[in-house]
Amino acid sequence: MTQPETWAALRAHWQDLADLGGIGSLLGWDQSTYLPRGGAAGRARQQALLSGIRHARGTDAAYGRLLDQAGALDLDPVDARMLAVARRNFERATRMPGAFVRAFSQHAGESYAAWVEARPANDWARMVPLLERTLDLSVQNAAFFPEFTDPMDYFVDASDEGMTAAQVDAVFAELRRELVPLVDAVEAAPAPRTDFLFRAYPVPAQLRLAEEIAGLYGYDFTRGRQDLTAHPFMTRLGARDVRITTRAQLSDPTDALYSTLHEAGHALYEQGVAEALLDTPLGGGVSAGVHESQSRLWENLVGRSRAFWAGQFGRVRDAFPEQLADVSEEEMFRAVNVVRRSLIRTDADELTYNLHVITRYELERQLLGGTLAVADLADAWHAAYDANLGLRAPSDVDGVLQDVHWFGGGIGGAFQGYTLGNVLSAQFFAAAQAATPDLDADIARGEFGRLHGWLREHVYAPGRTFTPNELVVRATGQGMTAAPYLAYLRGKYTDLYSL
Amino acid sequence: MTQPETWAALRAHWQDLADLGGIGSLLGWDQSTYLPRGGAAGRARQQALLSGIRHARGTDAAYGRLLDQAGALDLDPVDARMLAVARRNFERATRMPGAFVRAFSQHAGESYAAWVEARPANDWARMVPLLERTLDLSVQNAAFFPEFTDPMDYFVDASDEGMTAAQVDAVFAELRRELVPLVDAVEAAPAPRTDFLFRAYPVPAQLRLAEEIAGLYGYDFTRGRQDLTAHPFMTRLGARDVRITTRAQLSDPTDALYSTLHEAGHALYEQGVAEALLDTPLGGGVSAGVHESQSRLWENLVGRSRAFWAGQFGRVRDAFPEQLADVSEEEMFRAVNVVRRSLIRTDADELTYNLHVITRYELERQLLGGTLAVADLADAWHAAYDANLGLRAPSDVDGVLQDVHWFGGGIGGAFQGYTLGNVLSAQFFAAAQAATPDLDADIARGEFGRLHGWLREHVYAPGRTFTPNELVVRATGQGMTAAPYLAYLRGKYTDLYSL
Repeated sequence: MTQPETWAALRAHWQDLADLGGIGSLLGWDQSTYLPRGGAAGRARQQALLSGIRHARGTDAAYGRLLDQAGALDLDPVDARMLAVARRNFERATRMPGAFVRAFSQHAGESYAAWVEARPANDWARMVPLLERTLDLSVQNAAFFPEFTDPMDYFVDASDEGMTAAQVDAVFAELRRELVPLVDAVEAAPAPRTDFLFRAYPVPAQLRLAEEIAGLYGYDFTRGRQDLTAHPFMTRLGARDVRITTRAQLSDPTDALYSTLHEAGHALYEQGVAEALLDTPLGGGVSAGVHESQSRLWENLVGRSRAFWAGQFGRVRDAFPEQLADVSEEEMFRAVNVVRRSLIRTDADELTYNLHVITRYELERQLLGGTLAVADLADAWHAAYDANLGLRAPSDVDGVLQDVHWFGGGIGGAFQGYTLGNVLSAQFFAAAQAATPDLDADIARGEFGRLHGWLREHVYAPGRTFTPNELVVRATGQGMTAAPYLAYLRGKYTDLYSL
Repeated sequence: MTQPETWAALRAHWQDLADLGGIGSLLGWDQSTYLPRGGAAGRARQQALLSGIRHARGTDAAYGRLLDQAGALDLDPVDARMLAVARRNFERATRMPGAFVRAFSQHAGESYAAWVEARPANDWARMVPLLERTLDLSVQNAAFFPEFTDPMDYFVDASDEGMTAAQVDAVFAELRRELVPLVDAVEAAPAPRTDFLFRAYPVPAQLRLAEEIAGLYGYDFTRGRQDLTAHPFMTRLGARDVRITTRAQLSDPTDALYSTLHEAGHALYEQGVAEALLDTPLGGGVSAGVHESQSRLWENLVGRSRAFWAGQFGRVRDAFPEQLADVSEEEMFRAVNVVRRSLIRTDADELTYNLHVITRYELERQLLGGTLAVADLADAWHAAYDANLGLRAPSDVDGVLQDVHWFGGGIGGAFQGYTLGNVLSAQFFAAAQAATPDLDADIARGEFGRLHGWLREHVYAPGRTFTPNELVVRATGQGMTAAPYLAYLRGKYTDLYSL
């Protein structure tokens, strides 16, 4: 093969891998939105089959030889990074036998299907043997990478390349030290009015409103769509098909609104990757933490700001004139920022959210370390919530059965990215503010174009061209630091609660 | 391999083929229901990739050796037929090169995406080069099977095994001979009242009603669901995931109702295949004609009967009390059976429908025979409608661009099954009536269980265990004959129009 032929063959192979990835995303999207109950077992088998095919294509010996040959090519820096990422993916994947990948995928599908029924039935006992197998498979998964002595190091690195469990431990310790007294202070202050959030808000109007604002943010509905699901997510089904999902409650309009804005943030990232990188190994978000930084930035730093409500309150009141007849803009702003210790991670406010994440991360560490048995996990969950949040769920529905992650995937690395994302969201937003004079005034006018443009240029367009750490340094001038996040929280809640 | 091992390996392979088929169905279902515009090109590529994978699995040399080894096994009749059908599929598929299958699938996806835009824009010129390529690929497709001297023979046999184009020609000639004077007589008679069908019927209530009746028919919504699309279809996404789609118009409630009942008929067939056959080569409907017989049976023989309206009119009036305040059951029965020459096949009444099909079949025959060029097809369409139905579409939107078939698949064999289905629907229904005393009285009480049970036993459960001809003989006591269909039409319209 000539050099151009080698590169063309690699690009074609990457295109196929991207297309298989998109097919897998469609199987998952449908499973979480429209799949009839009877189809669950068959869908799990289809997902397992496709995982096996993807794994075979991603670890194919001929593909390995192509990667080796390409090592001799004279590549520009972006193509060189493309090749390096492909080689890393290939080496990671070839460590895992196809049969293992297929078995894990099939198990995850079955476990997910069981969880969908077991959660509303509060049937933790049904999930125990399934989760024991999940833990076993997760430990086996990490063991294919013996250079990580602690399984959690493998999982942290897998989702945020270059980061270690010890670093996560350190950031989490700093956050806990700062947040616990802040939560205490806030809880001691008078609570804002929230009564009007519990009125009846017809769901179709909620969805229209949320989608309108996602559109203002810059989410492109010609390259995506929104559907309802139990546990909202964003998913890339193709280079130009990036979908979001949301959920809605008649008596809490903030649930649909902020679920939508959160997933729209993820989607802005995926839709913003440079065209030239799409369907290549660089054509997507770079890490779990950076991804979550974008969902949280658009959900919280923007969507729960005073400037946002200055721009959007009129629109929201027009959608719900009766429900909001006696509500002021300032009351709305305060209500969507109420701090209240609660049982549900995805309902949690910005301050207490991190305590939910830290709890799960610590339980994962114990499970992977062998100091906690799955059979004891439901009780350990209750004890940890008691210790970290001073709360105890009345059942496992809002306890250990709460989140899909362990029941539809693996144990390890599923949660810490959420809090790393919070930390990075403030760091990126501060950098955007510094580079963009009067950004708050834009937001207060309902104009998000300059913010979106800055983020697209500095965070989205590069895709995986830089490592997470490189990207953070290039965009913000320094490595990851919790300082902007803590400053943001202190400033916001000192103001809101007159601390 | 031991004999049980050989059979188990075959079953596992068939399971994979069925799962890949289900994944392909999901790609198509999503394309026709929810795919955002930007995703069209990527979806076409995904479909082509998956077609290639399916083709490779279906023609794999190791699979061929397994089939050969299985020839020596001592099999019961059902397993022997399973193996025979698998061998036929294998032999058919191995004749077509994988690159051809992939190119055809990719082209079909691109053509479909173009048609979705070209049809509303009345842009026939855009479709000409695409359809020329479709015709070229269709002719190439037939040429892989040189034992069929006429390409149409290949396509007819491919959708209704054992049937020839000459037989279709003969049935169509008999139908035309009988139907043309019947249509003339009906058109000379006073038309029934239909004004009330054009009132405003809110779409959500239409869908609820249609799904309620599909449920009464026996469609199992725990193993399926209904969604909206432009061109309704039924699709099997898995052994226990058989979905239907419909469309709805505010000012014509019969469109959604009968689209739903039509697709529900297809779905009853697929949902009724015996459990033991699911995910095997016998696990689905046996042919295009038999399939269409079930959609037309439930849509027309049942759903447009006087007995049906005796049982359902109250339910329909309860759903639309204002719109139907001045309408009697008899008026409704007559309105849904109005005969009116029209431009749109899927809107056509039972009598004129066959003339739409015959028109398309004749155009396909000319295209495949080389006596008509694609560039002249739009004009030929208008001329044929003029000749066969005495009508001329004002544009190509309701002319050559009307149906998806040629633009999302191939040319040849796409249509004749509809009319063969009409013929068989009456033959099966007459047999069910003969075997089930007082069947009309059941239907008039809104009870469809005995009819569904008879059809499940005699038509659905066997799947592909028998050839279409065998199935017809076993279920009705004789080979396919137009006599029951013509008797049904003559009786029904003589009564309705007092001829």
